[in-house]
Amino acid sequence: MTQTADERTRIRRVPENAVHDRAALDAVLDAGLVAHVGIVDNGQPFVLPVGYARRGDEVIVHGSSGSRLFRCLADGAPTCITVTLLDGLVYARSVFHSSMNYRSAMVLGHGRQLTDDDELDALRVLSDHLLPGRWEHARGPSKKERAATLTISVPITEWSLKVGTGGPEDDDEDITAEPWRSLWAGYVPIDQTFGEPVPDSHVPPGTQAPDYLPS
Amino acid sequence: MTQTADERTRIRRVPENAVHDRAALDAVLDAGLVAHVGIVDNGQPFVLPVGYARRGDEVIVHGSSGSRLFRCLADGAPTCITVTLLDGLVYARSVFHSSMNYRSAMVLGHGRQLTDDDELDALRVLSDHLLPGRWEHARGPSKKERAATLTISVPITEWSLKVGTGGPEDDDEDITAEPWRSLWAGYVPIDQTFGEPVPDSHVPPGTQAPDYLPS
Repeated sequence: MTQTADERTRIRRVPENAVHDRAALDAVLDAGLVAHVGIVDNGQPFVLPVGYARRGDEVIVHGSSGSRLFRCLADGAPTCITVTLLDGLVYARSVFHSSMNYRSAMVLGHGRQLTDDDELDALRVLSDHLLPGRWEHARGPSKKERAATLTISVPITEWSLKVGTGGPEDDDEDITAEPWRSLWAGYVPIDQTFGEPVPDSHVPPGTQAPDYLPS
Repeated sequence: MTQTADERTRIRRVPENAVHDRAALDAVLDAGLVAHVGIVDNGQPFVLPVGYARRGDEVIVHGSSGSRLFRCLADGAPTCITVTLLDGLVYARSVFHSSMNYRSAMVLGHGRQLTDDDELDALRVLSDHLLPGRWEHARGPSKKERAATLTISVPITEWSLKVGTGGPEDDDEDITAEPWRSLWAGYVPIDQTFGEPVPDSHVPPGTQAPDYLPS
């Protein structure tokens, strides 16, 4: 718990939305697919989307050894990994209190490059998170492909989680007095859905889409 | 075009996925709801999700005047605003070539605080983007609410756009030789969908959800 009380990750705005439960953090990290990863280069922040996975107390990301982002991460530069799930649009009676429902996890720290069997395990965890069931069927990474990849672990030690749910929190006078009391207010849920699988042109005719594809 | 050729926004990895068409950038910015905004504090990057809108050649964000992020932005600190739309999971025959379909727009620059009528116009643009149709019906921002809000404009001058679409790009030998040539490969589309509106407990019985809610 001490890590979330740290000044760098203390949630200042709407602190009642801060969640200090590590299991809740893990649930958000396990539900997302894309993280937004921040690094600093020459005083300029850069924020890039990457597929990620959680492995116990680590966030795992991987990318090209030619990428600035991944070279910075491998060098141990300070980073911020943010995963946001957008859950809804909140229609308050006032514009001011209108907002969004979301779950947003932030992990601060330094990356560490993984190697050898530890890296291979991390690549499997990544595949199992992003494309469950695929690792056992697809061709595994070759030595050359491994050499072209940087696999990075960031420890989940300094983190925060902010969650907004439900309907608006309007001012009392907007709820009780016309004209605003007659206005519809509430929220519209947002979800992520998977469409029909699209095979590429090389798949032999009659090949079934595998059961492990998401739907 | 010169701005996207700038070294800071040159797309180094998979450069064939770089798109230099400003209209394509605008389309991505206009399709997203949440941006991930990066700032630097004491050498540490922070990446936070915020609702945003495009107004011509600007990205508009707003937040509490008590927020570190928005105070930094109002002070003109360097920022990176990244908007990512996740479009699909790509199942290659190899783990290495498996990936995601996405559109990701990145805008680098410095924020500028908007004031007076310019700020009010920006707040309307934000509302019209995030909650289309609501501005005309909801209670507008009061003087006190305006004072509690920082509205920031970041010019769209230095930017990049990266887009991945379609199926995997497998190695020739994986496409032509068993066992991988018989493996299903392709992509699974991902979409964002809106659920049934949920009114809050104060909405008078019989009040219809308005037509302008997304569906």
